[in-house]
Amino acid sequence: MLELYELAGIHPDHRFSPYCWRIRMALAHKGLEPVTVPWHFGEAALLPGAPRVATVPVLVDDGQIVADSSEIAVYLETAYENRPSLFGGPVGEAHARFVIGWADTVLQPQLFPILAPDIARFVRPEALDAWRRTREARLGMTLEAARAQREAKLPGVRAALAPMRRALDAAPYLGGDEPSYADYAVFGAFQWARCVSDRDILEEGDIVGDWRDRMLDLFDGLARQAPTG
Amino acid sequence: MLELYELAGIHPDHRFSPYCWRIRMALAHKGLEPVTVPWHFGEAALLPGAPRVATVPVLVDDGQIVADSSEIAVYLETAYENRPSLFGGPVGEAHARFVIGWADTVLQPQLFPILAPDIARFVRPEALDAWRRTREARLGMTLEAARAQREAKLPGVRAALAPMRRALDAAPYLGGDEPSYADYAVFGAFQWARCVSDRDILEEGDIVGDWRDRMLDLFDGLARQAPTG
Repeated sequence: MLELYELAGIHPDHRFSPYCWRIRMALAHKGLEPVTVPWHFGEAALLPGAPRVATVPVLVDDGQIVADSSEIAVYLETAYENRPSLFGGPVGEAHARFVIGWADTVLQPQLFPILAPDIARFVRPEALDAWRRTREARLGMTLEAARAQREAKLPGVRAALAPMRRALDAAPYLGGDEPSYADYAVFGAFQWARCVSDRDILEEGDIVGDWRDRMLDLFDGLARQAPTG
Repeated sequence: MLELYELAGIHPDHRFSPYCWRIRMALAHKGLEPVTVPWHFGEAALLPGAPRVATVPVLVDDGQIVADSSEIAVYLETAYENRPSLFGGPVGEAHARFVIGWADTVLQPQLFPILAPDIARFVRPEALDAWRRTREARLGMTLEAARAQREAKLPGVRAALAPMRRALDAAPYLGGDEPSYADYAVFGAFQWARCVSDRDILEEGDIVGDWRDRMLDLFDGLARQAPTG
């Protein structure tokens, strides 16, 4: 029994967390189909391993609780070592940590002010006040102010993708000829954007868009078929 | 016979190109000691393979000419496959392209305006006018204006190192327990700064500084012993 606790919107099938998407893709890469469990903002006490565990994704594999997307990826690589590799060995795993770090500290923080006003639409009414308060503190502005700045912030996000373009000039995936966990870590952010907003963050003709299309096609269109908001 | 054409300053032993340092370190990783050939701005016609080849580093391995640092690294990995690996396999190599892309499009462009006024001191008089003209065009300002903005630009460089810090929180090198070409690609930029400027780009206590110290110690202090300007 493999369970994955994922962030859900008001509709329980609407799953939009970038960190949860990293793991959904990693599980599919390993040929694993989890039972997914919807979890909502404000339900920290309902998570397996709470209160030590306070964020999704959480994987429960035959009773073993693994939290934190990067920890889960490493767990899957070891526990399912005979399935297709996520990292291609220890050096690939070390280099992936840089790519993950870039998604965590550059890409997602740049996307957050652009997406936050849209995400608010998918937070259940009983959790919305707390969500807005904490997110506006992180943004340093109201959601309305963030929305007004959205178009002005898109060029900065697009410019920040330059390292991806260099890698994608040389190969179809960040992992080379086949996708790796580096692809899933970065794709999580694009799927986050796709699942909460109609506004495309990429410009027409961007090589990153071609890669995103390939990612959406993987695993019989797993990510492409996911409900958007 | 293994020759490496490297950018040199006014003193022929002063070598400060970030791209050349990537390869000096990669050669040492492979246990190879090249004969290094000093090359100066304005001497494009003197390069092996000119005019097709117009930039350093250039490696000449038993008559075979290999140009472009990334091409040289891949060449070394294949030609010396029984020596310690630079990439740890194809996925490690693919992931390294992202790190190299980050060094090329984020780290070095952010450092360039900070270092350019210092680099000017090491350009030979006969090449200085052309060097200044092309670099000021790239900077969009005079070298003097760039110098005046130097301190104001350091916080941006330091903030940009966030993905490195995430990777170095988990392991001593970007390559994991041992250095890889990803480390050398990024270290080239730090050695560039070290070889042209007294101003430390890092703040005291930055984990990146501990990594830089480890890099300077590698191969019996190869990079630490290199002449600075």
